[in-house]
Amino acid sequence: MPTSCAFCEILLETREAYPVLEDATSLAFLDHRPLFPGHCLLVPREHYATLGDLPPDLVPPLFLSARLLARAVEDAMNAEGTFVALNNRVSQSVAHLHVHVVPRRKGDGLRGFFWPRQPYVSLEAMREVQANIQTAVSRLRSEEAP
Amino acid sequence: MPTSCAFCEILLETREAYPVLEDATSLAFLDHRPLFPGHCLLVPREHYATLGDLPPDLVPPLFLSARLLARAVEDAMNAEGTFVALNNRVSQSVAHLHVHVVPRRKGDGLRGFFWPRQPYVSLEAMREVQANIQTAVSRLRSEEAP
Repeated sequence: MPTSCAFCEILLETREAYPVLEDATSLAFLDHRPLFPGHCLLVPREHYATLGDLPPDLVPPLFLSARLLARAVEDAMNAEGTFVALNNRVSQSVAHLHVHVVPRRKGDGLRGFFWPRQPYVSLEAMREVQANIQTAVSRLRSEEAP
Repeated sequence: MPTSCAFCEILLETREAYPVLEDATSLAFLDHRPLFPGHCLLVPREHYATLGDLPPDLVPPLFLSARLLARAVEDAMNAEGTFVALNNRVSQSVAHLHVHVVPRRKGDGLRGFFWPRQPYVSLEAMREVQANIQTAVSRLRSEEAP
């Protein structure tokens, strides 16, 4: 655990929190400054900064919990939908991987991340980006292959 | 497949797309109107509308792909981080579950979803929300137990 990680402190129960879901590998609790009431944060019990840092064997239990939590938050808050999101490094307020689960309603004022969006400047630009990501996927797959 | 689902059409290759990652259960392709170049959408090959609708056995492969794609997008785009998000129903433009993976840089102008946030009106209000979500988690767990 890093010298000061608010979420590790919550996991160690040295910092107050309001848990809503617990299992062997993860914990979810209420965000104390929610976008809307019922906004939860789901964290792995072990400290990993980002999704890319999370070992592959911890990905299934974390996201099975995220799925369960999304259903539970929607039901419990009588919401029409949910927003499930995580920030890796940029805009990440605590450097301990956390999945936001936020109840949503139509017209709730959350524009979310659907902001200025625009097409690629050219087909070539799009194809270049595609090729670069394909290459990175192949390389990472070969690095992670057992 | 619903009568008109843009992502099912991409999966059937009757609609043009620029794939970046493929595996047995999922496909990722470039968003054609990206927040930033390199913005990808990851979808399960079978049509499910939301994360809650996705059968539990399809959760691990989808999010293992999301993890891989987040690393690949960050690397390929020389980004400083990524934003990984999905909308369930509200703000969901295509009713086929899709995980956004967006490259991020500090100062990129994406405020993301960290908008007007405010504490609960009272401790009682927070505890009531906590209890409601805990109850929903327990009920859903018992419904899904084999």
